[in-house]
Amino acid sequence: MGQVNVGLIGYKFMGKAHSNAYKSVGMFFPLKNRVVMKAICGRDETAVRKAAETWGWGSYETDWKKLIKRPDIDVIDVATPGNLHPDMSIAAARAGKHVICEKPLANSLAEARAMQKAVDKAGVKNMVFFNYRRVPAVSFARQMIREGKLGDIYHFRTAYLQDWIVDPEFPLVWRLDKKIAGSGALGDIGAHITDLALFLIGEISEVVADLKTFIKKRPLLESGSAFFARKKTGPPQYGTVTVDDAAAFLARFKNGALGTFEATRFATGRKNANQFEIYGSRGALRFDLESLNELHFYSKDEAAPEQGFKRILVTEASHPYISAWWPPGHIIGYEHTFTNALSDFFRSLETDQPVSPDFREGVRVQAVLDAVEKSAQRGKWVRVVP
Amino acid sequence: MGQVNVGLIGYKFMGKAHSNAYKSVGMFFPLKNRVVMKAICGRDETAVRKAAETWGWGSYETDWKKLIKRPDIDVIDVATPGNLHPDMSIAAARAGKHVICEKPLANSLAEARAMQKAVDKAGVKNMVFFNYRRVPAVSFARQMIREGKLGDIYHFRTAYLQDWIVDPEFPLVWRLDKKIAGSGALGDIGAHITDLALFLIGEISEVVADLKTFIKKRPLLESGSAFFARKKTGPPQYGTVTVDDAAAFLARFKNGALGTFEATRFATGRKNANQFEIYGSRGALRFDLESLNELHFYSKDEAAPEQGFKRILVTEASHPYISAWWPPGHIIGYEHTFTNALSDFFRSLETDQPVSPDFREGVRVQAVLDAVEKSAQRGKWVRVVP
Amino acid sequence: MGQVNVGLIGYKFMGKAHSNAYKSVGMFFPLKNRVVMKAICGRDETAVRKAAETWGWGSYETDWKKLIKRPDIDVIDVATPGNLHPDMSIAAARAGKHVICEKPLANSLAEARAMQKAVDKAGVKNMVFFNYRRVPAVSFARQMIREGKLGDIYHFRTAYLQDWIVDPEFPLVWRLDKKIAGSGALGDIGAHITDLALFLIGEISEVVADLKTFIKKRPLLESGSAFFARKKTGPPQYGTVTVDDAAAFLARFKNGALGTFEATRFATGRKNANQFEIYGSRGALRFDLESLNELHFYSKDEAAPEQGFKRILVTEASHPYISAWWPPGHIIGYEHTFTNALSDFFRSLETDQPVSPDFREGVRVQAVLDAVEKSAQRGKWVRVVP
Amino acid sequence: MGQVNVGLIGYKFMGKAHSNAYKSVGMFFPLKNRVVMKAICGRDETAVRKAAETWGWGSYETDWKKLIKRPDIDVIDVATPGNLHPDMSIAAARAGKHVICEKPLANSLAEARAMQKAVDKAGVKNMVFFNYRRVPAVSFARQMIREGKLGDIYHFRTAYLQDWIVDPEFPLVWRLDKKIAGSGALGDIGAHITDLALFLIGEISEVVADLKTFIKKRPLLESGSAFFARKKTGPPQYGTVTVDDAAAFLARFKNGALGTFEATRFATGRKNANQFEIYGSRGALRFDLESLNELHFYSKDEAAPEQGFKRILVTEASHPYISAWWPPGHIIGYEHTFTNALSDFFRSLETDQPVSPDFREGVRVQAVLDAVEKSAQRGKWVRVVP
Repeated sequence: MGQVNVGLIGYKFMGKAHSNAYKSVGMFFPLKNRVVMKAICGRDETAVRKAAETWGWGSYETDWKKLIKRPDIDVIDVATPGNLHPDMSIAAARAGKHVICEKPLANSLAEARAMQKAVDKAGVKNMVFFNYRRVPAVSFARQMIREGKLGDIYHFRTAYLQDWIVDPEFPLVWRLDKKIAGSGALGDIGAHITDLALFLIGEISEVVADLKTFIKKRPLLESGSAFFARKKTGPPQYGTVTVDDAAAFLARFKNGALGTFEATRFATGRKNANQFEIYGSRGALRFDLESLNELHFYSKDEAAPEQGFKRILVTEASHPYISAWWPPGHIIGYEHTFTNALSDFFRSLETDQPVSPDFREGVRVQAVLDAVEKSAQRGKWVRVVP
Repeated sequence: MGQVNVGLIGYKFMGKAHSNAYKSVGMFFPLKNRVVMKAICGRDETAVRKAAETWGWGSYETDWKKLIKRPDIDVIDVATPGNLHPDMSIAAARAGKHVICEKPLANSLAEARAMQKAVDKAGVKNMVFFNYRRVPAVSFARQMIREGKLGDIYHFRTAYLQDWIVDPEFPLVWRLDKKIAGSGALGDIGAHITDLALFLIGEISEVVADLKTFIKKRPLLESGSAFFARKKTGPPQYGTVTVDDAAAFLARFKNGALGTFEATRFATGRKNANQFEIYGSRGALRFDLESLNELHFYSKDEAAPEQGFKRILVTEASHPYISAWWPPGHIIGYEHTFTNALSDFFRSLETDQPVSPDFREGVRVQAVLDAVEKSAQRGKWVRVVP
Repeated sequence: MGQVNVGLIGYKFMGKAHSNAYKSVGMFFPLKNRVVMKAICGRDETAVRKAAETWGWGSYETDWKKLIKRPDIDVIDVATPGNLHPDMSIAAARAGKHVICEKPLANSLAEARAMQKAVDKAGVKNMVFFNYRRVPAVSFARQMIREGKLGDIYHFRTAYLQDWIVDPEFPLVWRLDKKIAGSGALGDIGAHITDLALFLIGEISEVVADLKTFIKKRPLLESGSAFFARKKTGPPQYGTVTVDDAAAFLARFKNGALGTFEATRFATGRKNANQFEIYGSRGALRFDLESLNELHFYSKDEAAPEQGFKRILVTEASHPYISAWWPPGHIIGYEHTFTNALSDFFRSLETDQPVSPDFREGVRVQAVLDAVEKSAQRGKWVRVVP
Repeated sequence: MGQVNVGLIGYKFMGKAHSNAYKSVGMFFPLKNRVVMKAICGRDETAVRKAAETWGWGSYETDWKKLIKRPDIDVIDVATPGNLHPDMSIAAARAGKHVICEKPLANSLAEARAMQKAVDKAGVKNMVFFNYRRVPAVSFARQMIREGKLGDIYHFRTAYLQDWIVDPEFPLVWRLDKKIAGSGALGDIGAHITDLALFLIGEISEVVADLKTFIKKRPLLESGSAFFARKKTGPPQYGTVTVDDAAAFLARFKNGALGTFEATRFATGRKNANQFEIYGSRGALRFDLESLNELHFYSKDEAAPEQGFKRILVTEASHPYISAWWPPGHIIGYEHTFTNALSDFFRSLETDQPVSPDFREGVRVQAVLDAVEKSAQRGKWVRVVP
């Protein structure tokens, strides 16, 4: 049994999620090589050392360039904000490392293309962490569509609804800063539903969009940290929100389907509602990430009086990824999607088969987001140029 | 106790629904005047005579102009396809009758305006039969919004989903003929959700839209009637569908809310899913006509760990219209919305108070539909001119 | 076209529900004879006269014996509390009238048997108003079970959950008085689920039960009427509740199925939740009266990864009773179950076919309730003797 | 930082679930001592060696007595079938090890009592692995009940519904053998809902029960293994099922609440539906393990027209255990309940506070199961003697 050594850049929310996945992937999936958590990297030494200890990384670095140069690392995982993705991913590729990158691939289409070019040139494996493709119910949805169970697709209706910044006093965190995050709801969660659209339905030809910032001034993080601490430390300083709070767009798919998309952080009461509905000539599907073990399926092939939306509990051994986990009805959670994705990635290393979604697919998502932004500026339909 | 005499034009689906409402309104609601079902009108004498007998109309007419002239009629109810609304409504108003008209008010904005002008000039009561405003849950939703329970409104997401023409062999009925119906899903069911948008959220400033016809040729009704009869009578003749199968649009509301609308007859598995979601700074609401006795409400005013979407069964005496009906948990159905609407109408006659929605409000819906059609042609945002 | 003349005894909740059904049955169902609302009967003349006017009865009586003697009445409908059922029904039968009786048939098994004997001897049509059999979803459930779609039945789990007397200050109304109502939750709503058990699954052999009265003293109605008026008129007088607040029992069906039953008026938040779940070797069904247009069906005959509980919206023309009503997705409500039941009854008059459930079936329900009461007293299993 | 060394007996379903929990507990919860996976034990050396490697145990044993004697082990976790619990747990306690034992504590009340006596005498920490108490929604339910949000409890309705042996050709596995498993659905899943009843509502005074075996003969495992392999290897040999397929009972709680319980492996379509409903004077709760991140709450304290069952997504940092995991709406799964339970256990070691449920509580569950079995034999109510 060989081994594959991983270096992770980032130690916050995504750092934790990825760490857990590296730790568990070999326990649940039958891999040939042992996955070794070699090093984690972050700028704050105290914090990154603690992360290394708690999560089980063998060492840590505070300089990502040093990490990338380390000869004992086979795979670099970029789990940082979007503005850092290009430099890190391109350098890792040039250093001959396989690269896994958080989504969205980049903050601009041009950067995303440069990243793709770099990994292609270096001939290294590459994957974008669109983990929601790896929800068993979503993978199963794709399988059913491929098998023709929905027939011709007429409608793809999707929304990613959250509410974590509805409070106007929620501070100006990095995700609300265009320079770091690139965009707001669009690139953060709109990217996820765009990726699922391409995964499930196919290419998008053109879009017409609206972007909206409901709250334009927010407390700066220093003063705003009172929000998290639930105490007031004097009148807060306000700064300008430079990204969208919500994005909505209509889309025309190449196959003739009509798409409606909405991504927002202002859907009061929705915590992580990544939802889609697909209507086809033979049937329909419905999904919501808040109930991620369920897929709802309607089939016109059944006897007419018995047709209805069926709640399939996607926890059977016959469903994608589930045989690795638990018996029927013993549901899995959010974090398992990362483990499932990594099992695909490491298997692709072992078999030298392609892994999906790779950077090329990441670029296609970026092209849609790019067209959305252009349409919102121009007030009309814009073609997607991938 | 006085009485008010009604004459109804139309004896098919809407004729039946309206007849039932006239029959039951006085039984359930405490009106001062008795509602008398005086005459029903339709061109096919055999059919209209049978309708009169079955549904309890005192007489029948085969010429609507004759009905309108009858001195024993106080109220004319126009329950015909849209192309007939203007002539009938205007003539009724000129004859001094109060006018109730099925939705959408007309097939074009210009006609709708002319109708409004006619009723205003005649000084007669007028109502458009947007019956879904009179679903108790919808009326209650409006009441809650008015009371500020949702705070500032950020998002209005709505869809009216049906599937009755998904089968490509479904014939070319009048609702698929632009000359009679004016438009397809847009005017038929899109009008309903547009009316609810205006009712619940307020005016729409501009829209950007897409209209789609998935199946462009369908069997002519004569040959297509085989579809209904479930037998084949030779190869069918095909004609062209001249209306939209689906309509989708984004909307900007005057109050800053962002709207997404979709109306379709191609949502396989959805029978009558008139749905909305409203997200505001203090709370959220969700509704689906297929479960019309339920309203889902989320309130940020509750203790944080106890917040959640609450299924309110809108069957309490404290809910709109319900005290007329049954005890808690004894649900009502589709037809009750017509009875509720008529109770409002007849009370407005008794009290000489305004009734809503009147033709003026019907025009405002029409103005949105008009902008949607223009946007679909022009490929860009179009201002709504009411 | 002939006609059939009805006389109704009772003008409160059930009087209203039955009146509406007589009024609408001929409008929606194709009957050969016209149903004529001839007379309504109640002791309070002012009230019964008003009921007659509002609901459309041609005349009224204040003495039920007089009503029963009237030669212009063909059918007597007994919609009074249970203690009055035997005398009225037996007298009506002896007078040669067809008899419809509210449920439960009687307050005791002996009385129920006497009633059955009377109608049998008189040779008149008879029906017990177990209206929930006539919910389309329930009728459809029975049809599916008959067709073998569930295979052998293993489990029948049912509960009828209400909450209208949870407040300890809710007054001592007649339904809480054993002399009038016979029993509490057991005979009122427990009777309904017992009838559905016999209708759907078959005979019950034995039961073991518990009856519970949570609140033993309540304000007398005179003083307690302050509860309804929401004001206090001095300290209330209290009386003793003489019936059960809740009934629970286990049952063994003749076919080997295991049953669990619960009927309660103390299920806070449940308004009219008449629910069942049926599990068989080939499939399962689930129903809740608060969503009465839905039936949930699970079939093991489907491909394994696609199995799931399916929400069938029972509003298709192919479903029982629905062709009389509205198009798919246009839901019906509580009151329609009475109209459906009457359509069966009047058709049985026209065709001289049996109607179900008749008094004989009412007796079988009563035999189960009787065994439940005996078991609750004796603390052990009791055989059902029908 | 100190460390605590664990030895696990058992390497199948529960072995995997427990191993994962030991592996992750220190990553997610802030423990003072490092949890070290010292040794795993099983009789089949090849299998246990592989389990040790895959799951990360430092060593393995094939003789549980040897494991218990190892001085480098602090905690023994007994994850074997019920018939082995007493010997292993008692020996571990005598050897001075802390003991964690899978549920139910034992196959008989007498054995359970002996186990409690042993741990008490040895003065070691002890816990029964009733992991479903540690579902955040369940812990939160208990918290709400304790805070009086439900008022007086009237009803506890619970069922644990599975369907994995509905097929009559499913073989005679150890869980269907009384000698090994003690009982069927009763001890396996009925134990879980009994424990939750005691946890949420309090002590049970008496019960009346029915036990049912629907399929009495099944293929022996050797021949029946064809079932799993999906091929036939000649006509199977049949053996007798010696446990219950389903258990149902009524219960009287000490606090006056009425309980209904059902545990079955014959609820076609239900995979892991551990459900409860609680109705009290001020509110109600509802839960289903198949959607374990949700708790439904009804409060009579809210304004009357706004009351309804609220779906609380129990994924907020303010909910029990959640701050260890992910942001709101990022759901957790089945396995997390074990990790949560272990975090309680290891914290109790660090603080020397009691942990719950301990063996004493395990005995109380056993006393209820014992009374259920006696009642099923005797056909009448039986008092619970804890």
